[in-house]
Amino acid sequence: MKMKPYEHPPALYPYREWSLGEDTYEEEYNQRSESVFALGNGYIGMRGNFEEGYHGTAGTTVAGNYLNGFYDSEPIVYPEGAYGLPAVNQSMLNVTDARVIGLEIEGHAFRLDSGKVHSCRRWLDMQTGLLHREVEWESPAGQRVKLAIRRMVCLRHKHLAAIDYAVTALNFAGTLQFVSALDGEIRRSGASSDPRLGSGGAEPSLLLEDSGYDEAAGMLWMRQRTRHTRFALLTAASHRLQAASGRETEQQLEGREVERQLEGQHISVSHAAGMQCGETVILTKYITYHTSKDYPEEELRERSASVLEMAEGCGFNGLADEQRTYLDRFWAHTDVEIKGDPALQQGIRFNLFQLLQSTGRDGVTNIAAKGLTGEGYEGHYFWDTEMYMLPFFTYTQPETARKLLEFRYATLDKAREQAGLLSQKGALYPWRTIDGSENSAYFPAGTAQAHINADIAYGIKQYVQATGDVEFLVSRGAEILFETSRFWADLGYFNPARGGAFCINGITGPDEYTAIVNNNAYTNLMVQDQLNYAYETSLLLEREYPSDYERLRQGIGLTDGEAELWKEAADRMFIPFDEELGIYAQDDTFLSKQKWDFEHTPADKYPLLLHFHPLVIYRHQVLKQADLVMAMFLLGDKFRLVDKIRNYQYYEPLTTHDSSLSPCIHSIISAEIGDLAAAYRYFDRTVRMDLDDINRNAKDGLHMAAMAGSWMSIVNGFGGLRQTHGMLCFDPALPEQWQSFRFKVTARGQLLDVWIGSEAAVYTLLEGTGLQIRHRGQPVLLHPQQPVSLPLARQLEAVIFDLDGVITDTAGLHYQAWQALAGELGIPFSRAVNERLKGVSRMDALDVILEGSPLRLTDTERLALADKKDAGYRQLLEQLTPAELLPGIPELLDSLAQQGIACGLASASLNAPLILQRLGIGRRFQAIADPAALQKGKPDAEIFLTAAELLGVPPQGCIGIEAAAAGIASIKAAGMLAVGIGRREQLAAADLLLPSTAELTAEKLLELFGGKGRRT
Amino acid sequence: MKMKPYEHPPALYPYREWSLGEDTYEEEYNQRSESVFALGNGYIGMRGNFEEGYHGTAGTTVAGNYLNGFYDSEPIVYPEGAYGLPAVNQSMLNVTDARVIGLEIEGHAFRLDSGKVHSCRRWLDMQTGLLHREVEWESPAGQRVKLAIRRMVCLRHKHLAAIDYAVTALNFAGTLQFVSALDGEIRRSGASSDPRLGSGGAEPSLLLEDSGYDEAAGMLWMRQRTRHTRFALLTAASHRLQAASGRETEQQLEGREVERQLEGQHISVSHAAGMQCGETVILTKYITYHTSKDYPEEELRERSASVLEMAEGCGFNGLADEQRTYLDRFWAHTDVEIKGDPALQQGIRFNLFQLLQSTGRDGVTNIAAKGLTGEGYEGHYFWDTEMYMLPFFTYTQPETARKLLEFRYATLDKAREQAGLLSQKGALYPWRTIDGSENSAYFPAGTAQAHINADIAYGIKQYVQATGDVEFLVSRGAEILFETSRFWADLGYFNPARGGAFCINGITGPDEYTAIVNNNAYTNLMVQDQLNYAYETSLLLEREYPSDYERLRQGIGLTDGEAELWKEAADRMFIPFDEELGIYAQDDTFLSKQKWDFEHTPADKYPLLLHFHPLVIYRHQVLKQADLVMAMFLLGDKFRLVDKIRNYQYYEPLTTHDSSLSPCIHSIISAEIGDLAAAYRYFDRTVRMDLDDINRNAKDGLHMAAMAGSWMSIVNGFGGLRQTHGMLCFDPALPEQWQSFRFKVTARGQLLDVWIGSEAAVYTLLEGTGLQIRHRGQPVLLHPQQPVSLPLARQLEAVIFDLDGVITDTAGLHYQAWQALAGELGIPFSRAVNERLKGVSRMDALDVILEGSPLRLTDTERLALADKKDAGYRQLLEQLTPAELLPGIPELLDSLAQQGIACGLASASLNAPLILQRLGIGRRFQAIADPAALQKGKPDAEIFLTAAELLGVPPQGCIGIEAAAAGIASIKAAGMLAVGIGRREQLAAADLLLPSTAELTAEKLLELFGGKGRRT
Repeated sequence: MKMKPYEHPPALYPYREWSLGEDTYEEEYNQRSESVFALGNGYIGMRGNFEEGYHGTAGTTVAGNYLNGFYDSEPIVYPEGAYGLPAVNQSMLNVTDARVIGLEIEGHAFRLDSGKVHSCRRWLDMQTGLLHREVEWESPAGQRVKLAIRRMVCLRHKHLAAIDYAVTALNFAGTLQFVSALDGEIRRSGASSDPRLGSGGAEPSLLLEDSGYDEAAGMLWMRQRTRHTRFALLTAASHRLQAASGRETEQQLEGREVERQLEGQHISVSHAAGMQCGETVILTKYITYHTSKDYPEEELRERSASVLEMAEGCGFNGLADEQRTYLDRFWAHTDVEIKGDPALQQGIRFNLFQLLQSTGRDGVTNIAAKGLTGEGYEGHYFWDTEMYMLPFFTYTQPETARKLLEFRYATLDKAREQAGLLSQKGALYPWRTIDGSENSAYFPAGTAQAHINADIAYGIKQYVQATGDVEFLVSRGAEILFETSRFWADLGYFNPARGGAFCINGITGPDEYTAIVNNNAYTNLMVQDQLNYAYETSLLLEREYPSDYERLRQGIGLTDGEAELWKEAADRMFIPFDEELGIYAQDDTFLSKQKWDFEHTPADKYPLLLHFHPLVIYRHQVLKQADLVMAMFLLGDKFRLVDKIRNYQYYEPLTTHDSSLSPCIHSIISAEIGDLAAAYRYFDRTVRMDLDDINRNAKDGLHMAAMAGSWMSIVNGFGGLRQTHGMLCFDPALPEQWQSFRFKVTARGQLLDVWIGSEAAVYTLLEGTGLQIRHRGQPVLLHPQQPVSLPLARQLEAVIFDLDGVITDTAGLHYQAWQALAGELGIPFSRAVNERLKGVSRMDALDVILEGSPLRLTDTERLALADKKDAGYRQLLEQLTPAELLPGIPELLDSLAQQGIACGLASASLNAPLILQRLGIGRRFQAIADPAALQKGKPDAEIFLTAAELLGVPPQGCIGIEAAAAGIASIKAAGMLAVGIGRREQLAAADLLLPSTAELTAEKLLELFGGKGRRT
Repeated sequence: MKMKPYEHPPALYPYREWSLGEDTYEEEYNQRSESVFALGNGYIGMRGNFEEGYHGTAGTTVAGNYLNGFYDSEPIVYPEGAYGLPAVNQSMLNVTDARVIGLEIEGHAFRLDSGKVHSCRRWLDMQTGLLHREVEWESPAGQRVKLAIRRMVCLRHKHLAAIDYAVTALNFAGTLQFVSALDGEIRRSGASSDPRLGSGGAEPSLLLEDSGYDEAAGMLWMRQRTRHTRFALLTAASHRLQAASGRETEQQLEGREVERQLEGQHISVSHAAGMQCGETVILTKYITYHTSKDYPEEELRERSASVLEMAEGCGFNGLADEQRTYLDRFWAHTDVEIKGDPALQQGIRFNLFQLLQSTGRDGVTNIAAKGLTGEGYEGHYFWDTEMYMLPFFTYTQPETARKLLEFRYATLDKAREQAGLLSQKGALYPWRTIDGSENSAYFPAGTAQAHINADIAYGIKQYVQATGDVEFLVSRGAEILFETSRFWADLGYFNPARGGAFCINGITGPDEYTAIVNNNAYTNLMVQDQLNYAYETSLLLEREYPSDYERLRQGIGLTDGEAELWKEAADRMFIPFDEELGIYAQDDTFLSKQKWDFEHTPADKYPLLLHFHPLVIYRHQVLKQADLVMAMFLLGDKFRLVDKIRNYQYYEPLTTHDSSLSPCIHSIISAEIGDLAAAYRYFDRTVRMDLDDINRNAKDGLHMAAMAGSWMSIVNGFGGLRQTHGMLCFDPALPEQWQSFRFKVTARGQLLDVWIGSEAAVYTLLEGTGLQIRHRGQPVLLHPQQPVSLPLARQLEAVIFDLDGVITDTAGLHYQAWQALAGELGIPFSRAVNERLKGVSRMDALDVILEGSPLRLTDTERLALADKKDAGYRQLLEQLTPAELLPGIPELLDSLAQQGIACGLASASLNAPLILQRLGIGRRFQAIADPAALQKGKPDAEIFLTAAELLGVPPQGCIGIEAAAAGIASIKAAGMLAVGIGRREQLAAADLLLPSTAELTAEKLLELFGGKGRRT
């Protein structure tokens, strides 16, 4: 699907560099804003609901409070079951709402839908980590107040959140009453047919056990228990009421009266304050959650009290200072700066901030698909972690990256069970999970996505190589690698029907619009990478950590030859490739299906999954998301540039991006193959996915993977970062829309700042002792605090020529050779016949000639005749001299040689080397692409890219020269500048058109190159 | 999977020709017996529960009363939904139990678990259609009674059932009390993980509206309503109490007292009778069900009363007489007689009887997978109807067959909707349904089985051709055919990647152990047949019924060229074939998977679907049921015999028969390819599937399709019946276990009796004016009541020879030819080298010779050398004379010619015709198999079968003669008798071994043939 240029909708939230806010409240967007203004600390997540509750249209709010990894399990009822399907579904619980603060002014409850709202602003400050709200409100009776509310979920304190609620009496004196509550009555969203939401449950999952007001600790508390998992949850809050002047407001006795509404699971405490006109009173509420997943049940009360006591000691402002310090450090390691594009600047910072807020850092929780911002995907963890979020953490906060991987280690036993359930050895990680067990109730796009095993292995490899944390590999990573590699070795097999290649059947790749296939290319490539890495790891352990290795071997019963089997499977891995199309096949049968009819699919039928039966989707060539294209990013060195271009050009038009995980990958590959405009479009779509609500479901929670993907688009896409064995290699490019951009990466403990401007890239080692990197393939050694600036402008490094019509003209010789053969056979031959031979294969040409003959020849005889013609032609070639060079060519070759610009040849003629030699210019050409070794001829890019590859020059440093339209197309497809020799009507696509080679000079080529501003 | 010989368990029900019964009651088998003793009339179904209720172990009973097509719809909740999946599930309801009759003897309730049971028998009489029970019981107080209970569901009266309950006081005088009830409290079976059962529901589906006792009509009644579908059900009963002597028992007032237990949906009426010792009293209960699906709601009461009044007028015995008359006519048209095997005789009659009982005959109901005998598959109708049950009805009760097809016509609109839901034109019939809408909640083995469209088309074609009911075709069938053909034309496409062949992707074939594939061979073949038939039907209508055709075209908007497109799609249909294996591939990827590891699958892991994750099953070559093998039966003329053998030999070992629909098909194909022993084994397993509870789930209901399949095994398998264009062709064979068997078929209104004994088949036209049939390919004209007896013994019709070592010896000539070539090239050549050339291809042989040479040759040159050797060899052949014939051969050929026995040649030599000619015996051979045209050489059966085919002789009429082990294997695989010339150690498999051709005489061949008793 050709992506339409994305138009930002009118900004709901004005573009600000470091904050996200709104200056008026619009109910229409309420639920989206609840997601967008969510706060979190990796454990507690709070949607941006109002303290006073929601009084708008029913069904346009989700009051959400979540604890990472805190779930209930409900039985799954399958309308038609099967062996081995998950029996229960884990669902991250929406827990007791402790943010509730009602405000009454002389008996009038503050509500946005009553009285009069004079002004209403709120904003999320990403530098301080505070959510602000300011409202000026007039009660129905005319009392006017100003509210200034600050909310924080403490990044430093896992169990703590706080609200600072200031009220100023603007035009009256009187009494305020704050009714602060814990509301345990959770309204669950109902069943939905949208598979991206949960199936919903009918019964409440949290059952009240007890609640009360602890006078000694000043603590309101509620203890609940999950219905099925039987986890205990203790929610608690304490309060401090004070005047802004510092004078403690007298707390009236009735202010402490505790109202309990047991049936409603609602408990509240009221505070009243007498106000002077103009005076400001502040209620600070500290909130804490503790569960029996983390601590012994009997400690929950005491721990809550102790956290609240600590918080009160700090005060809100003290906590806010800590928050700021925490975030300063965060941004110092992660900030991405985009100059010249405030919308995208805001988007990328918002994304990184939300990633921080949603990520579990304790080794037993992880990152849910929607983080802690909503209930989409039920709080489940997916491959999203390793493939999308982990890279961000690996390169900015490696300690968090390690915790995420430790989660996989902690759940390895469950993965072993899952493999057993599927009759396989080793371990199979769940497609979606909270506690490590499989939660996917639709296995074709769930359990079948076994590639998650290889994704986790890839994450481990990247993490270990980038950080150098071999200790993790030895103590945990290796066991994961070995057990998941065992799974693959057992699942796949050396298939006699494929010449003994290692095949993997009956799995689903990343693209969920194709399910249960054999030999998904992405999967097989990733498994190949994993098996090699597992094998290498086994060698490393054996060599360097023999006792750890022995212990591990014993522990998991690793037998002799297992690692060697992995290596063999990797070596003989089957990768489906279509010879005719010259591309990798997504799987064994993908290319034999019909292509999706995009032309007749109106825009409102996307995402397809909500409008077409799965069978309809499965029957077509159509992708939900990057599949093979993703492998081209992850395993870039497995693909030649020409393959990347060809594959991308095939799959890109078939990709709907109905998955939010897709555009960022396309952005990265677009950047790599030199299409910066497309890279920018895809990035644009990714980076503001939730702020502009592109997928129209931000209300259900934010798209964490897309957010992390936008970071990858910056760093791996425009920054061109690739890493192998710990070496960071950059190939940066600046989109024309920007003035500059900047990002930071940490590798092996060293912090690097990368700035890309229009002329140069500047690398600065901010922390560390010295770092070797590569810039466009060239090694660069960085010293601390010594910026290295490297130019970005491309030089003309090579010119790649076609032969016929550009260097010489061989058509006449072919004519002579055919003529001689025809004469020998006594067949009439003419120029007219000769015309029919152009662009025709040798054997077909012979058949054309034989048409005029009564001869009936065997294949052997025909072959002999063709050989004879060739021999004749070669004899004629032998007679070529430099005189046959076309005008201007000798001078051009001389001039290029003088300026150190390389020359390459991209001709379909098998006799090209002989011709160049006879023309006396053989030594002028440093590379000749061998047409016999090509998968596809012109207009495919392959021949020009091959010549450039042989010269060691990137296509962006090349000019190609051609006399035929197919050749011009080939040059353009290769991403080079094209010079055409001939007439406009044929060669209109050329960047420079010259009527003859006589006009062709080095100066014109250099001018063309400079004029195009090849600054990438 | 090689099927183990099936051992009948100890007979639970003694083998009786016309009844099924037990002489003691065994609680262990209670639930199975409830299914087996079920009664029905195609509308009402009653399981064999006791009138007094069940007092055994909990969970081992299902009190079941069903009305065909009477269902409730419950919402389906998908744990992970998708667009287009069915939103509700229809489930055939277990309705109010009206059979309940409690008996109290002087206050003691009759129960099998109290007092003393002196004897207890019950039996189902398949000639009278009555279920009998006789119990002699002694109450705890010592009163002894004899009960004789008869039950009937009236085949003549859709809404009527009756119970005749006689009690004799054996040793006392006193009072009996009958408490007769309507029990509307249905106990539903709970959720099950067995996908073959329903998912179960939590809430009752039948809600009581009202109940009462109608004094005027003497009618106890209850009105209920289904929860979701809002259908009304009226259940009613009336009673007659009398003494056996004929004297009306005085009905005491309190006997009429109506007890109502509204909450329990239970209403009852009591009758008391004073008894003399030795006296017999009979309570007759008439039961009727009416629903608003059939009649206006307000008529239900009145209709019930009127049916009961009619029944009382007839009396139980009058109804029983009608029942007997009905069944006499049924058996006259359907009976199958098996002499010499009482178990199978009982089995086949039981199956036909249950088919009759379960089949809807009103055009709006059909046959549920478990009939009306249980709740497995929730009363849904499947393809089972057209593919398994319909043939039985088509050939025995065509009026019922038409009603079954009318059901499909009645639901065509729903099928159109379903096609639309799948983004396709035309109509797609549901995989499982009650009212015509799709009810499959697991689409990979449900909606994806689009082959049901072609199955229905096939059923229509068979029905119309066998009955000549063109009126059905014109008025209904054509519309079904056209709309379903439209579906195919839209679903499939001319695939450029397959040379423009018509491909059908993303469907599931009959075998549910493989799901969602491209080009399932069964489906594509069946669709091809359907499209051809639809095209022919359009021509027929255009020609013969132009106004009907025009009306239909208008009605469904049929456009010009549509029918032609169907024809083109049929002509260009892609049928996957594996050249290397020489077999049809089940689908595009089936053969590239791993074969299932049967060796390591213990017996208790079957059926696989209950013990392995679907992904594990999908990844392997393993079949749940006949798939391609089924196509070989249905579309036999699309396959050569050699294909059938080869395909069967490939797929049979991979088939688990985990589906009860499978063994009967394997039985038919085994019979066709001449393996009568296997055909018998598979038949045995099918015909007593429920009586012996082979699949261990007869308790959930009887396997209707398997029952009908057992009829097909008899008629199509052992009887060898195939039908094309209305012509019945028989190729009968008698299993050696039987003395004879007999069956009846009706075609075009004529009733034919077919008897197969050991020596002859006897065809008798019982009704009709004259019928042309074929027996073993020969036309036979039958006249009414004039039996035609045709012998079954096979004559030796042909002898098929190998050439080398049997007729002559050419090894020496090859040696000479190679030797000459080697000499010319100057390469040493020896006998040792020559030995290495045997059984090696021409080009490989050349390479062996060239090993000893320094020559490095191009392919063209090597080809030229091989041609040269051939030329040399042919020159040597030219010099052959009759003198080179091996001893005895000339005499044998003479003798065979004199006796009219044909000769064929099955030699791998391309020069065979030349050799025979030079040997002077060219004219002795009527057929020479061309080895160049073979898919596979020896030991495959193809070459011998090809020779037999050319001779027009079935393999059972041939002897093959061979000198090599591979050749003997080929002969045996072809199903011929094999004569070996040579040594025992090599040719042990031969039926006759002779040391040299000198021993080979026509007499020995004829003796071998006769001695083997080739009576098939």
